[in-house]
Amino acid sequence: MPQNLLLLFELLGTVAFALSGAMVALSKKMDIFGVAVLGLVTAVGGGVIRDLVLGITPPATFKNPVYATVAIIVSVAAFVPAIRRFLFAKPGLYDKFLLLMDSIGLGIFTVVGIETAYIAGHSSSWFLLIFVGVITGCGGGILRDILAQNTPAVLVKHFYASASIIGAVVCILLWKLFGQSAAIIGGAFSVLVLRLLAAKYQWSLPKPENDFE
Amino acid sequence: MPQNLLLLFELLGTVAFALSGAMVALSKKMDIFGVAVLGLVTAVGGGVIRDLVLGITPPATFKNPVYATVAIIVSVAAFVPAIRRFLFAKPGLYDKFLLLMDSIGLGIFTVVGIETAYIAGHSSSWFLLIFVGVITGCGGGILRDILAQNTPAVLVKHFYASASIIGAVVCILLWKLFGQSAAIIGGAFSVLVLRLLAAKYQWSLPKPENDFE
Amino acid sequence: MPQNLLLLFELLGTVAFALSGAMVALSKKMDIFGVAVLGLVTAVGGGVIRDLVLGITPPATFKNPVYATVAIIVSVAAFVPAIRRFLFAKPGLYDKFLLLMDSIGLGIFTVVGIETAYIAGHSSSWFLLIFVGVITGCGGGILRDILAQNTPAVLVKHFYASASIIGAVVCILLWKLFGQSAAIIGGAFSVLVLRLLAAKYQWSLPKPENDFE
Repeated sequence: MPQNLLLLFELLGTVAFALSGAMVALSKKMDIFGVAVLGLVTAVGGGVIRDLVLGITPPATFKNPVYATVAIIVSVAAFVPAIRRFLFAKPGLYDKFLLLMDSIGLGIFTVVGIETAYIAGHSSSWFLLIFVGVITGCGGGILRDILAQNTPAVLVKHFYASASIIGAVVCILLWKLFGQSAAIIGGAFSVLVLRLLAAKYQWSLPKPENDFE
Repeated sequence: MPQNLLLLFELLGTVAFALSGAMVALSKKMDIFGVAVLGLVTAVGGGVIRDLVLGITPPATFKNPVYATVAIIVSVAAFVPAIRRFLFAKPGLYDKFLLLMDSIGLGIFTVVGIETAYIAGHSSSWFLLIFVGVITGCGGGILRDILAQNTPAVLVKHFYASASIIGAVVCILLWKLFGQSAAIIGGAFSVLVLRLLAAKYQWSLPKPENDFE
Repeated sequence: MPQNLLLLFELLGTVAFALSGAMVALSKKMDIFGVAVLGLVTAVGGGVIRDLVLGITPPATFKNPVYATVAIIVSVAAFVPAIRRFLFAKPGLYDKFLLLMDSIGLGIFTVVGIETAYIAGHSSSWFLLIFVGVITGCGGGILRDILAQNTPAVLVKHFYASASIIGAVVCILLWKLFGQSAAIIGGAFSVLVLRLLAAKYQWSLPKPENDFE
């Protein structure tokens, strides 16, 4: 897999995640600092939790702050009314654009998490590999929702973390069978396709029946 | 102390903690994924925080995922309406059963946390030993309540964390006086007895008087 | 810089932060245990996050629990009605006293965080240095607000974290130009002055315009 393409996808995912954090902050009427922090946390928070769990300190985002810088710039840009009006001019188009980027981000971040664990020498524990993949993909959004006092979206948004989990399993299987490149492409692609299908056909997971008090 | 008995108690505590997380998720109308995640986090979250504080990475739960697996199975089972109806058929009995298991879990997890710190070579710092005992016992519940947007129960539930703290002190004292077995049995037993007495006689700690605005 | 003076300032900051945590807990009608925990978490939480990010385990506060002990004593004292009545007798004076101590604490904790990173050998990454400074200063308050279910004050309180960020930059610049003493004094002083000016003149950062839905 061309390294440049992976870098480009990671940047796309960072932009999408930063935008989602900034949007939540704006909806909570936070000031420009809060918007920048929430965008930053959403974009890099998952990777920080992953690195702490793997014992990689300081976490990678502090050694190479390019993603953090992009996340801050994107968040501050989202704060500018003219840019926001542009983004909101066609809500349908904007929503589709954000869904696509967010899905690419979720897929890329999931496989990057697994790749990080492999590089750190943790290739034998399935549970750890899946966990670091999913927390890299979903952790930033969880921190965003905790800070913004929202119910964490992953706990109620149908088929978001589920797509990340399935993609993580696909990624690990492909890694063991065909090696790194197939795993990264196949895993990220699985998440992307599942997310887009789930959004189109409004998949949902079983919820408790009404008999529960 | 027979190792098998400790393992059995740890499993009991895991089941009780997973159930408490699943019940909170069900009361928030989360879907089956949210229920499984909240059950899992409640059961293993305290140990993960403990290991991060002690520098044990990846945390033990990722190296030996038996407890995590049990927690997920229990949570998914609690999602099944028939099982839920059975558990709720006799609310009084269910509550007593959950209280007993939760108290066993709190006691066992508290002493396991202290044991982990001892094994990691931190036997001299009382503050650290008490902290890791209490965070192993209470940390999962704190994460559960943060994710579910509830006020953390340990901050308002009378004599929950207090029982864990007293049990931790008893455990450390016994360890220094009589060694590991006495510490584990005596510490866990103290927590269990204190929790049951507190529940029976409704002990509560002083709260601020009404003069406070 | 005289080491004793730094120690005194750190104690002052600890007292102020513990008080702010205890006050939040009291306003939420928590019992004496909740008050002590929230005061403790507010005072030492930022340093714990900093140490985990830097890979310093167990975090410093567990090796030298003097600050934790002070935080608990202060929090329990704030619980006593007579002391509270005394503090609230002159709300204006109390507010000014708390603002001054909190600003000293924020300044000291910010530069202590940067100093810790320098000592741990991370002098080259600006992003890391600023982050650990700000998280040492603001992290305890963030944990306090998450546990108390408040919107994190740093995300909405004008010019709080901003003062910490600017002070961190001043500190790092001074460190590179004139060494440690100038950096610690100049950095902490910058935060203090900015906070007091911001409070006096009610500085605020731009917020989203009303056109945002």
